[in-house]
Amino acid sequence: MKLEGKVVIAQGGGPTAVINQSLVGITLEARKFVQVTRVYGSLYGVRGIIDEEFVDLTQETTHNLEQVANTPSSALLSTRDKPDEKYCKEIFKVLKAYDVRYFFYIGGNDSADTVRIVNEEADKADYEFRAIHVPKTIDNDLVLSDHTPGYGSAARFVASAFTGVNLDNRALPGVYIGVVMGRNAGFLAAASALAQKYPDDGPHLIYMPERPFNQETFLRDVQRVYDRYGRCVVAVSEGIVDENGVPMMTILSKNTEVDAHGNVQLSGTGALGDLLSDLVRTRLKIKRVRSDTFGYLQRSFIGCVSDVDQREAREVGERAAHYAIWYNMDGSISIQRTGFYSVNYQLENLSDVAGKTRHMPDEFINESGNGVTDDFKYYIRPLLGSGFPTAHRLRAPKVDKILQVNT
Amino acid sequence: MKLEGKVVIAQGGGPTAVINQSLVGITLEARKFVQVTRVYGSLYGVRGIIDEEFVDLTQETTHNLEQVANTPSSALLSTRDKPDEKYCKEIFKVLKAYDVRYFFYIGGNDSADTVRIVNEEADKADYEFRAIHVPKTIDNDLVLSDHTPGYGSAARFVASAFTGVNLDNRALPGVYIGVVMGRNAGFLAAASALAQKYPDDGPHLIYMPERPFNQETFLRDVQRVYDRYGRCVVAVSEGIVDENGVPMMTILSKNTEVDAHGNVQLSGTGALGDLLSDLVRTRLKIKRVRSDTFGYLQRSFIGCVSDVDQREAREVGERAAHYAIWYNMDGSISIQRTGFYSVNYQLENLSDVAGKTRHMPDEFINESGNGVTDDFKYYIRPLLGSGFPTAHRLRAPKVDKILQVNT
Repeated sequence: MKLEGKVVIAQGGGPTAVINQSLVGITLEARKFVQVTRVYGSLYGVRGIIDEEFVDLTQETTHNLEQVANTPSSALLSTRDKPDEKYCKEIFKVLKAYDVRYFFYIGGNDSADTVRIVNEEADKADYEFRAIHVPKTIDNDLVLSDHTPGYGSAARFVASAFTGVNLDNRALPGVYIGVVMGRNAGFLAAASALAQKYPDDGPHLIYMPERPFNQETFLRDVQRVYDRYGRCVVAVSEGIVDENGVPMMTILSKNTEVDAHGNVQLSGTGALGDLLSDLVRTRLKIKRVRSDTFGYLQRSFIGCVSDVDQREAREVGERAAHYAIWYNMDGSISIQRTGFYSVNYQLENLSDVAGKTRHMPDEFINESGNGVTDDFKYYIRPLLGSGFPTAHRLRAPKVDKILQVNT
Repeated sequence: MKLEGKVVIAQGGGPTAVINQSLVGITLEARKFVQVTRVYGSLYGVRGIIDEEFVDLTQETTHNLEQVANTPSSALLSTRDKPDEKYCKEIFKVLKAYDVRYFFYIGGNDSADTVRIVNEEADKADYEFRAIHVPKTIDNDLVLSDHTPGYGSAARFVASAFTGVNLDNRALPGVYIGVVMGRNAGFLAAASALAQKYPDDGPHLIYMPERPFNQETFLRDVQRVYDRYGRCVVAVSEGIVDENGVPMMTILSKNTEVDAHGNVQLSGTGALGDLLSDLVRTRLKIKRVRSDTFGYLQRSFIGCVSDVDQREAREVGERAAHYAIWYNMDGSISIQRTGFYSVNYQLENLSDVAGKTRHMPDEFINESGNGVTDDFKYYIRPLLGSGFPTAHRLRAPKVDKILQVNT
């Protein structure tokens, strides 16, 4: 039995480099079904449903959709709104009025929760309705998935950036601290490990939220690396926490900003990096200490994208359309790894995914809690995609000294 | 008459994405000449000459040299040392002992000054010696050159980054401030203008060191853009100065660090961006304000390079070898633009380049001093190289509202 009606697609939360691949995957696939009367895009996430801000994607050219698919950041724009029951009732009022029968929300675990609530409201209202959560997050923190669309490209950016700053730090030695996104999970900071090509390459230390951050241990780690190599490159997750689970940023920052989900603002400020730099400079008396906060560049940079990530982001969109429209099923799409490297997609229960956070498993973090294991490198390498650039060094032999030997 | 002896190549100052193209250009070209007995690389810039830290590039494989050419950051490592007369006497002692007759120093205007001093010392010592300054700087601030090797790739990074953050800011509106390298010249911050594709695209405001930065004017500019678009993307040179020529960073930062050239440390800290953010947040009462400091990523990121920049960096190296070894001439290589887009190289007097800073010409800066002109866009576009990625938007038509019209 075919459920006839409209499709609405929305994008929520922080953008990724491939989030529009999923949008275009759903759109192109949905447009093939006769029971789909229109494919609408909601502007500014679920907020656009309330505000009735729709665009008609049925009237978008296929060529332009392909161009948009290769453009980072949410083409339908986004929101940080987290709908409660009242908000969802508003959503239904609109969806019913527009005869919408298929709802696709592309986002992270917050967005999965939104889809779950919306779907429950649909059930309560006895409205025949399919709702699918299409995963995306650079944090890679969705449960039940091997990894998430958006992670591979952000990881490629982080690994590329650390490849460069490691070379920079090698040429002009000192301590370098790079602060990487990742509120609860260290996957993105861990990706910096792919910059380690030669045995003495940085990042020499990687700190993730999965292990408590201790300032004294940190200083000892930096001193040890500095004594050995005359330099030290550090990768730090913005979400690192102390022994009591309190984010270092909360401890150190005065003006903390909280969003609708109760999350403290971590990005868009260089405070954490500057503080850690000051710590190294004052306590270890190392003169050249630099920090960069990668900030928004890592999730929206144009021209640094993983082709594997692109392909998978497109396919989760297509599969979402299949599950909803062919099979009349609700849920959340997950990526399952089936080989090295191959994947398959399956449908999970929304309640099994919504609001839950996946962390770096223990086998991906080294014993000292300041680096990653080979297991992690094996895990992440295919996700960076093809043509990942690597650094090369001179191997020219040293010349024997003349003057210093004679004197 | 052929001047027989060794070649020494060194790299100084901050790395670029293409500085090794010049190194490889000189090396491969110099190795062809019979009068060149050896091609040595000095480790850590001129410091490596004093320390007799040489590697024998004559014994490096051509294949590996080509791999190194495509790797960012100084493969011979670098230094911030600025030789005085005493330092230069030390250099000669070593160069003479090693029978070095050709010296190539790849660097910015500080490095040009080093070459000039070294060359003067050679003249005084009546030592037959050719010294060439091979330009590189992401700041694009060398006089007599249309542009400098290293600038195009850094500009491509900055333009790509702003393309992304503009999309990000469009999806999740607010004020975004991106702090770009550039101590004295605004060329690199200005490159952000290439992110402006659609008429309302950011950066909406660009502040360069060539125009005094006034906090009140800045706040008025931001408010005006915010009122118009509901968002605002700002690009700022790290080297912006107030009406009295004092760097904003010096005014605002407590722990200022000064290098051997008397330069205040501007990079490797998020302080300027955070301060400007606070200013907007407190004075304009705009809630979502974010800043990123692009830091070291913009000069060493692997995988974001301009092919035009690569080619020219290679050629300035090759031409340097020609001038020194074929023609027995000293000087500094400059790039001359001969068409749209074609270039030629010529040799300048070292004293005409050394220690001098080129600024953005008036015709590249708009009247309000908060943006660039079309002349600048025409100037910079070819330097970004081929395949520069651009953003695409949905053009799907808006859907007529149902509920909001009826109520």
